[in-house]
Amino acid sequence: MAEAAVVTTSRLLKALRREPVDKAPVWFMRQAGRALPEYRAIRKEHTLLEICRQPELCADVTLQPIELLGVDAAIIFADIMTPLIGIGVDIDIVDGIGPVVGDPIRDHGGIESLGELEPEADIPDVLDALRLVKSRLQGKGGQALIGFSGAPFTLASYLLEGRSSRDFHQTKRMMYGSPVLWKQLMERLSEIVIIYLLAQAEAGADVVQLFDSWAGALSPEDYARFVQPYSADILSAVESAGVPTIHFTTGTAGFLDLVRDAGGTTIGIDWRVRLDEAWRGIGHNRGIQGNLDPMVLLGPVEEVRASAESILAQAAGRSGHIFNLGHGVHPLTPVENLKALVEVVHGYCPE
Amino acid sequence: MAEAAVVTTSRLLKALRREPVDKAPVWFMRQAGRALPEYRAIRKEHTLLEICRQPELCADVTLQPIELLGVDAAIIFADIMTPLIGIGVDIDIVDGIGPVVGDPIRDHGGIESLGELEPEADIPDVLDALRLVKSRLQGKGGQALIGFSGAPFTLASYLLEGRSSRDFHQTKRMMYGSPVLWKQLMERLSEIVIIYLLAQAEAGADVVQLFDSWAGALSPEDYARFVQPYSADILSAVESAGVPTIHFTTGTAGFLDLVRDAGGTTIGIDWRVRLDEAWRGIGHNRGIQGNLDPMVLLGPVEEVRASAESILAQAAGRSGHIFNLGHGVHPLTPVENLKALVEVVHGYCPE
Repeated sequence: MAEAAVVTTSRLLKALRREPVDKAPVWFMRQAGRALPEYRAIRKEHTLLEICRQPELCADVTLQPIELLGVDAAIIFADIMTPLIGIGVDIDIVDGIGPVVGDPIRDHGGIESLGELEPEADIPDVLDALRLVKSRLQGKGGQALIGFSGAPFTLASYLLEGRSSRDFHQTKRMMYGSPVLWKQLMERLSEIVIIYLLAQAEAGADVVQLFDSWAGALSPEDYARFVQPYSADILSAVESAGVPTIHFTTGTAGFLDLVRDAGGTTIGIDWRVRLDEAWRGIGHNRGIQGNLDPMVLLGPVEEVRASAESILAQAAGRSGHIFNLGHGVHPLTPVENLKALVEVVHGYCPE
Repeated sequence: MAEAAVVTTSRLLKALRREPVDKAPVWFMRQAGRALPEYRAIRKEHTLLEICRQPELCADVTLQPIELLGVDAAIIFADIMTPLIGIGVDIDIVDGIGPVVGDPIRDHGGIESLGELEPEADIPDVLDALRLVKSRLQGKGGQALIGFSGAPFTLASYLLEGRSSRDFHQTKRMMYGSPVLWKQLMERLSEIVIIYLLAQAEAGADVVQLFDSWAGALSPEDYARFVQPYSADILSAVESAGVPTIHFTTGTAGFLDLVRDAGGTTIGIDWRVRLDEAWRGIGHNRGIQGNLDPMVLLGPVEEVRASAESILAQAAGRSGHIFNLGHGVHPLTPVENLKALVEVVHGYCPE
């Protein structure tokens, strides 16, 4: 009974099923961490990876935005490289840079060295944290728990470039020059991602988001050839297990149809396209998530309100819209603006 | 007579007028410099800005791709910050980083300090180099001479961020938080850009390209509010003077209609959208330039050929296509691939 009651109040899960909601659900990528003073206080004592390795602390950080901002979902606090760190890849998370891979993959041997992911052995902490968050969410306001993974293309780009890149030249060199190696790498990463996402669902995630944050570096043809099949395998495997998915990319306004065709219960978009145009292109028989430019939150609160209302007007109260930013919260974001944004979304009445 | 003969053989100018051409014209952004060994030999002796300050040397570098690659146009070798350096802004070009502004603009005083551009006094070298290139092109194969400028948004982002940025947070903060200052800055920069482009045309440029390389950081609404009016003023002023323009942006697949509406004889696109879809959206009564991913040139020559043929097939022999990359040549590009690409474009026969 209690479980049923929670499910009926979860706006996020309703929106994923494109059922009517009392208010549009809202959460923010990178809502846990970065901008919250309560998070920064913890970060003074612990590195990012230390937080990830302590399930109690990780659960605290994951839940902070629920208490502090009033969002409709908690997203597990983890790094995009968590599963790769779990299988033993030498990765450090460097402040101001992000993930840095000690020994970037250059050949078949590097790909072969990526072992299988055995969740309970390799990533017990993130699963324990999910279980903790799930149990602490019981009895709260029906907020959903979101798991996530980087998509294979995004993970591959870190493994090949060694760190975040502007031009992806190592990645594209392998794609064009060694398509057989590329296929091996993407298949290996896809297996890892499927296991990782299903393990998160098993541990309590109500929905999982696939982050293909760098897909916008590609042409439509290259996305279709080198990326889409693997994302499709992952999204299909997870949805077959009954877990709803959010398929997020940035910079793909020119080929959102291909992103949609790869799958995803809901398609997450960035701010480089109008939400109404994007939704029309994707088709209203799919959900959409987005799409405020996170930088608007660095401006005055009046701009935040006006921009949010524009997006809500474009969604027009249609079932299946999840309000979010178009990418992660910027560390300099004033918390008051995040709170005001949640209020605008929850207070909005479509005409 | 000689001049008329040259004009009739200029494929680029014909394509700008959407007249039939014997072969599609082709040139590459950043074709002068970067990948060419002949350029790197010169760079061993001179910094980038030293080359810009020596018209003879600058003309040599500008013309290298004509001789070495067989492209249909020379683009003047200059830095995007040239006009700002000319009016006395403290800017260094740092290898591996790009332009670095000594004293980023933070307030009204910073904007006021941007003086007017007096071309013959402030940027005599680039004008002398244009005149030299123009005269050396006489009697060659009718190649066109391209001038260029960064667009105000792109210039403003360097002036405000201090260097290239991923999140443009200073730029967007001013846009949202100080719209009056933003307007002043954009108007000041637009005046400079108009004077700069007209001076280049006066000195011999047959066509000018406006580079709004960072426009794709914006939402459609913000582009329309904060950028489009200034680009429109510039393109209109230059076209009114009888100079054809190429309006280039990247990452704008979601609002190419707004880019088109800002103006431009021809619209330059990146590889994140299919050329045929983009052209249909822009309308076939405008020209289009693009759109090979420069990273394809780091792969095997077979990939270069296949990707180029796909783009040419999308252009379908329609008048008004100028073949180019979707952004600048990467420094690691093998020269053989650039040559092969020119051959494919010039050898292509639409079905």
